[in-house]
Amino acid sequence: MSSHPLRQVIEAADRAISAEDFDGVVEFYADDAKLVVHPGLVATGKAQILKAFLAIADHFEHRLSVSQGKIEVVESGDTALVLAETILASEDAFGAPVSTTRRGTYVFRKTADERWLCIVDNSYGTDLLGGCW
Amino acid sequence: MSSHPLRQVIEAADRAISAEDFDGVVEFYADDAKLVVHPGLVATGKAQILKAFLAIADHFEHRLSVSQGKIEVVESGDTALVLAETILASEDAFGAPVSTTRRGTYVFRKTADERWLCIVDNSYGTDLLGGCW
Repeated sequence: MSSHPLRQVIEAADRAISAEDFDGVVEFYADDAKLVVHPGLVATGKAQILKAFLAIADHFEHRLSVSQGKIEVVESGDTALVLAETILASEDAFGAPVSTTRRGTYVFRKTADERWLCIVDNSYGTDLLGGCW
Repeated sequence: MSSHPLRQVIEAADRAISAEDFDGVVEFYADDAKLVVHPGLVATGKAQILKAFLAIADHFEHRLSVSQGKIEVVESGDTALVLAETILASEDAFGAPVSTTRRGTYVFRKTADERWLCIVDNSYGTDLLGGCW
């Protein structure tokens, strides 16, 4: 299902994250969206999500680039569950490339004007139940 | 978040599945719900979901018992992403117990009268991207 329109939406959000256009990034989220920042910490709503992305950018020393590998979408009415290989690429302190692949779980809702907005962003996927992160 | 009301809903659905009360099982689903029967096969709506559960019961030779281990819920407005350790217990041809634990991903929606209905049932979780099943 890699040709699903949500792939383009997610890739556009990834470009905004990688470019540190965080005002642009929050426009991909619904007003009441939840972002799992890390296990145990959830940001709610655009203001908290913006703040979380600024902290994430600092954490990665402004070298973070996000992209997706495989994507599967299960759509039901105006809601979609997205399963995706989310690739976080960065550099270590010596400038050498490092990357982590997560199997993320995302929920999107389609608005009345046919735009998909993220309502749950959990890049940790089922690892939130315990496991390696 | 194991005390979330959705745990009780899911456990009630598990009891109905284990008792082969499939008319009861489909009442836990929204009219437009999707059930991932296995990778590559998705049932849509209550009639197909009922048929899928009858086939699943046959597949497990009417010895299937379903329960949940850890559950995490990320709720946004009237929608919730549920991550759960779903345990499928059965018996082999010699009557010896066998069980499989999946890390499932489920999406529920709350109705106007505060009932949670399943809109996406994907017990394969992120393994749908490829992996062991």
